[in-house]
Amino acid sequence: MLRRVLCTMFFMGALPSPAEMSQGHISVVLLGATGDLAKKYLWQGLFQLYMDQVSSGHSFTFHGAALTALEPGQKLMFDVLKKLACPPDEAPDRCAVLKDQFLKLSQYHQLKTAENYTMLNREIEVLLRQEGLKEAGRIFYFSVPPFAYTEIARHINSSCRPPPGAWLRVVLEKPFGHDLESAQQLAAELTSFFREEEMYRVDHYLGKQAVAHILPFRDQNQEFLDPIWNRHHVERVEIVLKEVVDAKGRTSFYEQYGVIRDVLQNHLTEALMFLTMELPANLSRTEEVLQCKLQALRSLRGLEKHSAVLGQYQAYASHVQEELKKGQDYISTTPTFAGVLVQSDSLRWEGVPFLLTSGKALDERVGYVRVLFKNRAYCTQSETLRDAGHSQCKAKQIIFYIGHGALNTPAVLVSRNLFRPVMPKSSWREVVGQPELHVFGQPLSDYYVYSPVKERDAYSVLISNIYHGRKDFFITTENLLASWAFWTPLLNSISRQPPRLYPGGVENQNLLDFEMVSGELAFTAAEPVELLHPDRSMPSDFKTIQSKFRQSPLVSMWSEDLISQLASDVEKAANRAVAGSGQFHLALSGGSSPVALFQRLARHHYAFPWRHTHIWLVDERCVPLTDLESNFFSLHSHLLQSIRVPYFNVHPMPVHLNQRLCVEEDGGTELYAKEIAALVANSSFDLVLLGLGTDGHTASLFPDSENGLEGTRAVVLTESPIKPHQRMSFSLPLINKARQVFVLVVGKGKHDITTQISRVGQQPRKWPISGVSPSSGQLVWYVDYEALLG
Amino acid sequence: MLRRVLCTMFFMGALPSPAEMSQGHISVVLLGATGDLAKKYLWQGLFQLYMDQVSSGHSFTFHGAALTALEPGQKLMFDVLKKLACPPDEAPDRCAVLKDQFLKLSQYHQLKTAENYTMLNREIEVLLRQEGLKEAGRIFYFSVPPFAYTEIARHINSSCRPPPGAWLRVVLEKPFGHDLESAQQLAAELTSFFREEEMYRVDHYLGKQAVAHILPFRDQNQEFLDPIWNRHHVERVEIVLKEVVDAKGRTSFYEQYGVIRDVLQNHLTEALMFLTMELPANLSRTEEVLQCKLQALRSLRGLEKHSAVLGQYQAYASHVQEELKKGQDYISTTPTFAGVLVQSDSLRWEGVPFLLTSGKALDERVGYVRVLFKNRAYCTQSETLRDAGHSQCKAKQIIFYIGHGALNTPAVLVSRNLFRPVMPKSSWREVVGQPELHVFGQPLSDYYVYSPVKERDAYSVLISNIYHGRKDFFITTENLLASWAFWTPLLNSISRQPPRLYPGGVENQNLLDFEMVSGELAFTAAEPVELLHPDRSMPSDFKTIQSKFRQSPLVSMWSEDLISQLASDVEKAANRAVAGSGQFHLALSGGSSPVALFQRLARHHYAFPWRHTHIWLVDERCVPLTDLESNFFSLHSHLLQSIRVPYFNVHPMPVHLNQRLCVEEDGGTELYAKEIAALVANSSFDLVLLGLGTDGHTASLFPDSENGLEGTRAVVLTESPIKPHQRMSFSLPLINKARQVFVLVVGKGKHDITTQISRVGQQPRKWPISGVSPSSGQLVWYVDYEALLG
Repeated sequence: MLRRVLCTMFFMGALPSPAEMSQGHISVVLLGATGDLAKKYLWQGLFQLYMDQVSSGHSFTFHGAALTALEPGQKLMFDVLKKLACPPDEAPDRCAVLKDQFLKLSQYHQLKTAENYTMLNREIEVLLRQEGLKEAGRIFYFSVPPFAYTEIARHINSSCRPPPGAWLRVVLEKPFGHDLESAQQLAAELTSFFREEEMYRVDHYLGKQAVAHILPFRDQNQEFLDPIWNRHHVERVEIVLKEVVDAKGRTSFYEQYGVIRDVLQNHLTEALMFLTMELPANLSRTEEVLQCKLQALRSLRGLEKHSAVLGQYQAYASHVQEELKKGQDYISTTPTFAGVLVQSDSLRWEGVPFLLTSGKALDERVGYVRVLFKNRAYCTQSETLRDAGHSQCKAKQIIFYIGHGALNTPAVLVSRNLFRPVMPKSSWREVVGQPELHVFGQPLSDYYVYSPVKERDAYSVLISNIYHGRKDFFITTENLLASWAFWTPLLNSISRQPPRLYPGGVENQNLLDFEMVSGELAFTAAEPVELLHPDRSMPSDFKTIQSKFRQSPLVSMWSEDLISQLASDVEKAANRAVAGSGQFHLALSGGSSPVALFQRLARHHYAFPWRHTHIWLVDERCVPLTDLESNFFSLHSHLLQSIRVPYFNVHPMPVHLNQRLCVEEDGGTELYAKEIAALVANSSFDLVLLGLGTDGHTASLFPDSENGLEGTRAVVLTESPIKPHQRMSFSLPLINKARQVFVLVVGKGKHDITTQISRVGQQPRKWPISGVSPSSGQLVWYVDYEALLG
Repeated sequence: MLRRVLCTMFFMGALPSPAEMSQGHISVVLLGATGDLAKKYLWQGLFQLYMDQVSSGHSFTFHGAALTALEPGQKLMFDVLKKLACPPDEAPDRCAVLKDQFLKLSQYHQLKTAENYTMLNREIEVLLRQEGLKEAGRIFYFSVPPFAYTEIARHINSSCRPPPGAWLRVVLEKPFGHDLESAQQLAAELTSFFREEEMYRVDHYLGKQAVAHILPFRDQNQEFLDPIWNRHHVERVEIVLKEVVDAKGRTSFYEQYGVIRDVLQNHLTEALMFLTMELPANLSRTEEVLQCKLQALRSLRGLEKHSAVLGQYQAYASHVQEELKKGQDYISTTPTFAGVLVQSDSLRWEGVPFLLTSGKALDERVGYVRVLFKNRAYCTQSETLRDAGHSQCKAKQIIFYIGHGALNTPAVLVSRNLFRPVMPKSSWREVVGQPELHVFGQPLSDYYVYSPVKERDAYSVLISNIYHGRKDFFITTENLLASWAFWTPLLNSISRQPPRLYPGGVENQNLLDFEMVSGELAFTAAEPVELLHPDRSMPSDFKTIQSKFRQSPLVSMWSEDLISQLASDVEKAANRAVAGSGQFHLALSGGSSPVALFQRLARHHYAFPWRHTHIWLVDERCVPLTDLESNFFSLHSHLLQSIRVPYFNVHPMPVHLNQRLCVEEDGGTELYAKEIAALVANSSFDLVLLGLGTDGHTASLFPDSENGLEGTRAVVLTESPIKPHQRMSFSLPLINKARQVFVLVVGKGKHDITTQISRVGQQPRKWPISGVSPSSGQLVWYVDYEALLG
């Protein structure tokens, strides 16, 4: 059959001569050849590939495969192939001929058993030998459910690898896992069958023309963008995919994934990367592009529960109950709408809000990436007299319009008061007209507008890129895992959070509008009571436990809320102290628990009176200050480097005098005590923050040691049972002079010691923490539910 | 005459009974009673005061005074008084009676000689004695040119003071000086005649109803404003006074003052203070209000040349030439338009741009104070479907509309998506209607709009406040001097800068639009060439001198430009070093010259790679680091506290080891040398910044000392001829290892040494600076015109 086709081709003037055919043969195997995706997009994409590359010098065969037996499978598949459309820009005659050839080059295979795979391999080999063709490579397109991946991969690896010199490309469709762990597992399995360069993970957004043009746009317009593509000029970025459809008919998938896994973790994150990554010197160097992208992904700031607002359309519950046969009392917390505030810690983007938003059952179908620049201009002329087009006081935006919506075409829009962009004339053309149309708050005439010369389906674009080996259009394993590493903490922290219910469609009105409030997101409108599920009672609805612990006030909540509360209380203490004495002396402990507090203070407490705050260390490990193990280093990384405390107000413990660590004769403890005495009135700190170790230690005062429990010494050297052994620490008498002492205890691991400590008396020798009892100050316990209740 | 009037009053039911008259008598003396201001506003204001206070218990007499002889003066004055209008809200009958009384209570006096003043005083005394009235106080309103102030003040002080128990209030009209020095001088003169509480300096903007309501508005709406009235929520503030008229007929005044002295230094600054000051606990406590205002004024960040954009309407030159009889070659640089970017260093406002703008010959007459809030919301619903009124995505603004413009009335506007403000119903009423009118980018229906129940002229308001002794409506001496201290440096730095010419009126188009670019202002449109004065040649047009000095490259400009250039060059060096080795080792000198560089780096170089920069000191004084004399303290105040250098990367010199200053045995120099050796590859700094002393010293290497000139020691202790004598310093060998050395020399005071040094050879013993000669690095001289050319 193949020979006949090749002969036919030789008679057509436009087609390649035999010499050009020397590029070799490519076999494309489409697994799941009769499935929905294949029907809708993939066969059309393969046909487009064939039309585009028929003169490339490569010859092709196309192998559809599925579990269905040969005859019914063949019929099913050819029913699809016969319906393949000729694109409008293709001459109908040529297309008809090519379609005929394409059908002849296509074959159905049942692929179920190991033998089936061996057979497929043999057929390809025989065909090639008969035609005397060199093999260039094989593409295996997995359009199958993920549970089938491993099995198929194993067969391909063992039976269908091309001979040396020819490449193998396997194309994988999402989902690529459900969270970091499952993605790692899946990646590990695949890696045991394929090399990294053989795998092409599809995110079809990377094939959307407007998304695919972000990097080329940045590259071609560097001259204009260089000065403004940064936090000094960009006010915010919106990356949005709104859908009108709901999840009906797909709940078996959707209920497990939800909108964040379905859209944000992949599509919107990829678009975000194209915006935020540093531009490699040469866009055609795939490896450089991927490295820059990976680095951008890794510099995203970690998400917290309040980084997101979540919604669920009202009918979702009944869709789930029906389709998944659940009872009326089944409650789903799967979000069908999410808005997430993402921030980057890169120098370029620090502080710029990236708002990622997607949802089902919304008022319109539209996708876009919108970069909004700050307005820094003042226009002296009155509004009515201003030049409409180019006024510097009009909004300045660049929009990559993915499709649908008011424009109903992919497009690139650039405000006319920014610059006239350089666009490749062969693929994008300027659009004029529709001046009455308003998009993003302005008439269309305020923008330079470009749309693709040829509108191309995302899968056609991607299939072409697979053929060209453009790996930068696909998701590498590192990229995938970095993305899951970024999203998984948020997914975990919201898993028990009830989303806001919304009616769906235009009736949503402003119910899903949200806003940024000190680095967090919140819906702007209060939730109407009648929409709430009547008997919904979630763990997060637990009331804050506020009572007594060891005769002192106790604050207890889920850990994230506890840290928020503690941070607010620290700020209150600071403001009180500054109002009173003009300064705030804060002593902080090392260890891991306070890290979350440091981060919270750094990111959410912009009005904290840092300029008047002195920062002291409660204890320190005897290592250099720049050592990763140093308490001060941790404090610096998580807090000091983000805030503005005067240099003189920062007081690291002198554990490294005379280039030696904690040598008694160097007098570090006396030096620190003197510094305290000189600056802190009566050596009475405004606030001392302590932790609690599983052995009952606090500060660096460990059980079974007299050191620092009583006496007149303010600062002492101690020995820790764990490395690094040598420590410097506040003594109990110094701690007990403080005006306020907060003890922070977080996590399941602390449950046993918390229970123990709740029962014992004052036995500091055995349980150093039990000796904390400010003589005239206040002690407050901040213990999270896990530590308190186990 | 007075008795007859008082009698007439007693017969009218609405008027006070004799018992109520016990409050005492007030004599108002209007100096300049027949001048323009008196004619236009002051007599009407005094009549209004009389109408308002006739039942207050005080009795009044009004004394007009001028240089004109009695008879013609009397006629002139009564011609004015007869034309006094009855306000629309006053019953015509009552007003007619009161006007008649007012005329009878008014008298003209010639006040020219000392005798005239003595006579006036006697007349007042006699009148009061005759009527048996107790004296409450005297108001002297100076509506005269400022040159006459001292003379009049002297006479009043010596001859017209009321008896003990009665108060004296003198009311002064601007200009209150021309710059800080002249204002200080005038203030000192006045203070020799009057006590601070006796002086009422008028800024009639404080009597504009919308301006006067800023503080009460903030006070009454605290609940809403508290969370948002700060840098986290306010995007920018515009304080604007646009005029259509030009300066024709007033150039003799205007040519000396210009728009900044005429409008910005006083009116707009006062409005700015009402916005930015902290709210006192009680607005009725005048002293607290004034203190808060003064503090706000003092926390403004200093202005620089590029804080302003300046314009001059094209016909101004010919107006000046005509009116001041100047030749065609006379060039005026007086600005008739200015936009100034003001910033506050207060915690509340740090980083918020306040744009003060005013100009003559503009397209419209309007005044407003506009607070624009940041948009932090994302609206999920498409624009066309959003609720128009309250959408959180619409602009949020509060506008104090001073008058004229589209609204043509004083008003307070608050965006409906912010809050419904609390307004005193007795004086402000809500306005509905004119929904088609657009103001500040939105239809009027997007705002809650309030206008005064009674529109009152500013002078009426102020005269009433003088009567009530409300000093917070006037400019205190401290306030005045603080304002001049703020504006004078800008006025000096722009005095030779040619303003941009503009045609005037609507033809200005976008020629006067300006924008903020890294903390500076610039016009957005390039200046059209045809508008430039053909033979205008200003000192600032001097070309940058770039040649050689002591065989090394020389950069020379005016000092401000030089500092800009140097800062850019330092940033370039930093980026180069970081790109190469990942870090930048920068050694900075003490002294006063680098302060401007530090400030420039802190305020304009947001992209500087501080995170990778190590900061070292070239030299230090042997004082504690927190001492005001410490080089490190100065570096910290002007640079470190504004940027983010990691704590570990900051390397103050160890001049205070073991609580002692620079004791040889403590080994501070060796310690610093070791630290350098440990961190700086080959002890070769990327950049060393040096200065030059008038004696030829550099770093802390002084003439006639061997110390540090050669040998292997990197850091040495030295002796300065001036206090504090003890110093620590880099040695010449260490300096000469650097990759780059920049020497900064600024100011006239350095001209002699600069000339000297340009001629001498390498004689470090005599001129330490002459020993600076990097062995394999580059030396660049940054010398300003004043140091270079004298």
